[in-house]
Amino acid sequence: MAKILILGAGVMGSALTVPATDNGHEVTLATTPVDADVLAALSAGGDHPRLGAPLSPDLNVVAAETLTEADGAADLTIIGVSSPGIGWAVDEIARIKPQNTVALVTKGLVSQGKGIPLTYVDAIPKMLDEKRVTTTPLVGIGGPCIARELAERRPTAVVFAGSTGNDPSAMKHLLETHYYRISVSHDDVGVEACAALKNFYAIGVSAMITRHTRDGEPVKNPTAAAFQQAVDEMAHLADWLGGSEASAHGLAGVGDLHVTVGGGRNSRLGKHLGEGLTVAEAMDGPLKGETVEGVDVGRVLAPHLAEAFAERALSPGTFPLATSLIAAITEGGPLGYDVGVA
Amino acid sequence: MAKILILGAGVMGSALTVPATDNGHEVTLATTPVDADVLAALSAGGDHPRLGAPLSPDLNVVAAETLTEADGAADLTIIGVSSPGIGWAVDEIARIKPQNTVALVTKGLVSQGKGIPLTYVDAIPKMLDEKRVTTTPLVGIGGPCIARELAERRPTAVVFAGSTGNDPSAMKHLLETHYYRISVSHDDVGVEACAALKNFYAIGVSAMITRHTRDGEPVKNPTAAAFQQAVDEMAHLADWLGGSEASAHGLAGVGDLHVTVGGGRNSRLGKHLGEGLTVAEAMDGPLKGETVEGVDVGRVLAPHLAEAFAERALSPGTFPLATSLIAAITEGGPLGYDVGVA
Repeated sequence: MAKILILGAGVMGSALTVPATDNGHEVTLATTPVDADVLAALSAGGDHPRLGAPLSPDLNVVAAETLTEADGAADLTIIGVSSPGIGWAVDEIARIKPQNTVALVTKGLVSQGKGIPLTYVDAIPKMLDEKRVTTTPLVGIGGPCIARELAERRPTAVVFAGSTGNDPSAMKHLLETHYYRISVSHDDVGVEACAALKNFYAIGVSAMITRHTRDGEPVKNPTAAAFQQAVDEMAHLADWLGGSEASAHGLAGVGDLHVTVGGGRNSRLGKHLGEGLTVAEAMDGPLKGETVEGVDVGRVLAPHLAEAFAERALSPGTFPLATSLIAAITEGGPLGYDVGVA
Repeated sequence: MAKILILGAGVMGSALTVPATDNGHEVTLATTPVDADVLAALSAGGDHPRLGAPLSPDLNVVAAETLTEADGAADLTIIGVSSPGIGWAVDEIARIKPQNTVALVTKGLVSQGKGIPLTYVDAIPKMLDEKRVTTTPLVGIGGPCIARELAERRPTAVVFAGSTGNDPSAMKHLLETHYYRISVSHDDVGVEACAALKNFYAIGVSAMITRHTRDGEPVKNPTAAAFQQAVDEMAHLADWLGGSEASAHGLAGVGDLHVTVGGGRNSRLGKHLGEGLTVAEAMDGPLKGETVEGVDVGRVLAPHLAEAFAERALSPGTFPLATSLIAAITEGGPLGYDVGVA
């Protein structure tokens, strides 16, 4: 039995407690200031208000502010927040100083001004370094994993990725179950790049679902062609960001893109773009008040990609979908990309 | 303006006449003995009985038996039959002796007894050689392309693949339109391998759609994880068959698998397997009288894959989905594969 600490009680962090408690570990779910409803519901013995599936009664649920350095002794600490919560999570890590493996489900790209953006596996150690805190290298988690389905013990396959010398096999052993199949990778940057990029590309692929219809039903060739285009661009960007193209063809790329096109906020935004709305019209209308992570990824990517094109480090001709998505996000017009447009 | 001859007036051969006539070429669609209904309907000025979209009034529709060696002067001859018609098509090719590029949309694997199966780009020249007929190397066509959608001018992206020294760029120039986007490849064997294998793998991926449901609706992680597994196995098999793994990540692999899982007979069979039917129960019941090409691919693959495992040329651990599909096809039990089963 190991001690596992999960920071953040949103749907993904909470769902990860299910394989962890099923494996008999002592699991603590630490709520953030925005998880007050979760803390209240779970403390009262109720269900998670947004997950849609029950959690183990053996789970320890605490407010993160009650954690101390003693909690840093956990065998595994998982950062389970979504990207807007990453600053909070870094502060908590700096405070409790985890002594063992730290992993993260948070996806995103972080700008450093010039040069290429960083994934969180590189950005978080840098943020901690600025606070004079040193941790072991982080383990990234990628692959198709809708939180509710994981909490319902529906089978999926994911990838845990640590840099060379940071083998995630022990962490795999802690969390693997018959429904949560884990493969390991040493391409932490590539896996994290794809985990972020798939949200961005799911917007573009999903636009094809609504752009081309017959009697209100989607025709299928355009979505399939755009899906392959997205995988191809993701592979090139994973390489550019310092990872391996192979991760784009793996669970964090093809696998997670497939599930992200299948539903969720990125896909919903894409479908509105396919119907002719602009990003602003969709975000001020049907998606009002929601965070669409792929849009944030596009905003971070925009100046860096422009710089890479200007410096000929990348060729614009390789990225028609990214270029068009960035234009729609930053310039506000309709999505220009179509399979039938060069 | 070029002369283009298409052998076989099934839905795919017929749909290809649309970009060809849109580009102003003189196009002849030659019907096979099983296309009598198509010949009758089109000769009477009606619509193709199965395509669901109109063809150009400028199209020449003839019974293939009226073709002569003079028709072999066409700038491009396309074999447009499905795999059961390949023997007929080879006889026609031997008779009219095409003088220029021959391409094919037919997908399948052909056993040679021992060793690895051949794709049609290698098998057809061998079949012609036995008839003492020599043609130029064939061009394979891959990528997501539902025939009706092509005939409706819905956009898609496909790949034309010729072996080294057999550049399909001229053929691309003949057929490319704003809705039929063509890239070229020199991995003819890899593209053709994926074009055949995607039918086989679509059965397995589609089984996950019905195996894991909530309130009758599919949950999404299992299908996404199986989709990635299929792509991974396809890449390994493309390499084994003498092609490149890259083609599995391209339009003929990822792209066409996506559209094939989205609908059609292979997908329907897979969904029945996911519901617990055996292949025989599905083929004798809801799919009675239909040809499911992925099953034929599995039957051809079965002894060759067993031989490769026995000779350690391939590792069974790399192919859980193929192994399970072959067992279901050749041994008759339910499909054992699941994402949550090692």
